Amino acid sequence: MDTSALYLKKHHDQRLRGGHCWIYSNEIDIQRSPLKAFQPGDAVEIFDSSEKWLGYGYINPNTLLTARVVSRDRDHPLSRALLVHRINIALGLRQRLYPTPHYRLLFGEGDGLPGLVVDRFEDLLVVQITTVGMERMREEIIAALDKTLHPSAILLRNDTPARAMEGLERSVEVALGTVPDQVTVQEHGLYFQLSPHSGQKTGWFFDQAANRQRMHRFAPGKRVLDLFCYLGAWGIQAAAQGASEVLCVDSSASALEGVVRNAHNNGVAEQVQTLQGDAFEVLKELRGERRKFDLVLVDPPAFIKKRKDLRQGTIAYRRLNQLAMQLVERDGILISSSCSHHLEEAALLGECQQAARHTDRFAQLLERGQQGPDHPIHPAIPESAYLKSLTLRVLGRM
Amino acid sequence: MDTSALYLKKHHDQRLRGGHCWIYSNEIDIQRSPLKAFQPGDAVEIFDSSEKWLGYGYINPNTLLTARVVSRDRDHPLSRALLVHRINIALGLRQRLYPTPHYRLLFGEGDGLPGLVVDRFEDLLVVQITTVGMERMREEIIAALDKTLHPSAILLRNDTPARAMEGLERSVEVALGTVPDQVTVQEHGLYFQLSPHSGQKTGWFFDQAANRQRMHRFAPGKRVLDLFCYLGAWGIQAAAQGASEVLCVDSSASALEGVVRNAHNNGVAEQVQTLQGDAFEVLKELRGERRKFDLVLVDPPAFIKKRKDLRQGTIAYRRLNQLAMQLVERDGILISSSCSHHLEEAALLGECQQAARHTDRFAQLLERGQQGPDHPIHPAIPESAYLKSLTLRVLGRM
Repeated sequence: MDTSALYLKKHHDQRLRGGHCWIYSNEIDIQRSPLKAFQPGDAVEIFDSSEKWLGYGYINPNTLLTARVVSRDRDHPLSRALLVHRINIALGLRQRLYPTPHYRLLFGEGDGLPGLVVDRFEDLLVVQITTVGMERMREEIIAALDKTLHPSAILLRNDTPARAMEGLERSVEVALGTVPDQVTVQEHGLYFQLSPHSGQKTGWFFDQAANRQRMHRFAPGKRVLDLFCYLGAWGIQAAAQGASEVLCVDSSASALEGVVRNAHNNGVAEQVQTLQGDAFEVLKELRGERRKFDLVLVDPPAFIKKRKDLRQGTIAYRRLNQLAMQLVERDGILISSSCSHHLEEAALLGECQQAARHTDRFAQLLERGQQGPDHPIHPAIPESAYLKSLTLRVLGRM
Repeated sequence: MDTSALYLKKHHDQRLRGGHCWIYSNEIDIQRSPLKAFQPGDAVEIFDSSEKWLGYGYINPNTLLTARVVSRDRDHPLSRALLVHRINIALGLRQRLYPTPHYRLLFGEGDGLPGLVVDRFEDLLVVQITTVGMERMREEIIAALDKTLHPSAILLRNDTPARAMEGLERSVEVALGTVPDQVTVQEHGLYFQLSPHSGQKTGWFFDQAANRQRMHRFAPGKRVLDLFCYLGAWGIQAAAQGASEVLCVDSSASALEGVVRNAHNNGVAEQVQTLQGDAFEVLKELRGERRKFDLVLVDPPAFIKKRKDLRQGTIAYRRLNQLAMQLVERDGILISSSCSHHLEEAALLGECQQAARHTDRFAQLLERGQQGPDHPIHPAIPESAYLKSLTLRVLGRM
């Protein structure tokens, strides 16, 4: 791949030297490297103002986040060989930590491949490409995954809204083999069916797997409420741990059909009930019925997708957690998650604490969970840390 | 207990209403409730400026952090009955989460009893009282613990420097029964001997137990370096998980004697070696010898005890992590902890990331651990969250 030189302005190389891999348009010396000379997705070599080489990357001149570094090793530009190398490094970690081949295999920047996400469901790989720079490498990515993992099928779930920011079309395409309508994912000894074609995001929320495992010990004998349950990952695991009853709530009828099927397949159909509806409305109804639960699981979609949504989204988290808190039985547990990067952990905790005070309860924070290790956080990129999951014990007035 | 009224200034009740339980001297209306009217440790009833009752607490007029709330329930002032109630609530959580009676039973504010810490080693309770308000309750505390847990012995490890701030003497006293020279603590199936009389702090660092468990999966077959090892909790557990060799480093000869004994008792004496010395110096020596380790465990004492030590202490964490990072083999793991409340998690991560960049490595943050659930965090009191433990995978240049 031919690469052109991209020059940074003086003193604008600090973030990169700290290990970050993003370059914003205002950091580029457009006298020396005019943006109009680049096509979206072009490979670049990045230099500081004194012509010191910083790394290989790719560029999209049409976006504010204009370029990303992919390699700091002059011998290794972005290529099929580099992809194979990075996939093997990522695979090494997952094979070490996961008992079965069900995990996020590649997590963008966290695995040194910005713009690329790959989930592994044993022989099926589900790929999501979010930048035009990676889109250019599409055939190389497929080839590299084929070479390293020999999957029976590869599905491109390129239907994420994030692609629009890069000027990319959205589509779902089979890139290799035959993708079944349903696949089974194994998590903590249970089996869940999902649709790779039409499931939420890439089909499964691997990022919560470790947090779900930590939830197990709070479930035996308890009444459980699973909000935004999707395919029942939390609730069915709680049931399998011996929860006396589990109510799974989701607005999607097809998700709830999945819950029923998955509950049946794991032998916990008797304990698991489903309820279709908007979580906020359902919570109000349950409150009206004076229902109480010993374990309440709050795992909503991102209410804050962009910084400008921070205020409105924070209010949504507040309302949700206040409603949820009201249904927690005394000495019960609330596990409250947020996958909005823009909502800081301390802010989510603050909302939970306000909810506790609002209902005259004393809450203890027992655990602060985050995305699992198959979503490694890039230490220099705060944006790569997005998932929070707080485990609170809710007591009476103290 | 007689209680006097303590009035807050107008608009100075916000923190308390948010759930916090501390009152600083400048928040007190000294016209209505002159500080000189109080003796250190006096029980108080706290009112806002419009005479609305806020809670029961205790006061020390000689300290900046002048008063603490202990109850927001008008029927329940601080008394033996309240202590028994709070102990039972705390016990309920520990019994639910811990397989054997070895844990922190009471964690001050986090369990609604500011100034009181109790560690449980089965039949032995080790108590630490850090405020004069709690010191006044000493006999009630002993009686309440005796009533709820029927321990064979209670030891007062009141030798923490924190007591000086409250004007309290430091001492180690047996309050009940006979305290043995050595007791055994069980953690994750292993047994560790420690001295309740002279061990560090209250004898054992229960706060790291969950983080040590998460370390287990990184240990099999690996070369391990355990810095500030104390009695070998990390290193011996790594050895028991199949680490090929473990080097335990501490400046204390008696701690290392404990490591040898504990390694022997757990059948891993062959894998475990000890080295006495200052961690910084030892790291330099090991670097000089070009030694490498697959798993490096950094668990130092608090380098930042007070806010004014932030800068110097941060430099110490930086030096330590830079030295440690240099000894991590490629694709190795660094688990870096800090128990300094004043060092924020992001700052510790920043130091680790700097250390990675300094050595031209790419680090992935796999996990962010904190104090275990027997040290519950009070959501309104950031100071109650102090322990950070970051698990980083250290790769080559990327």
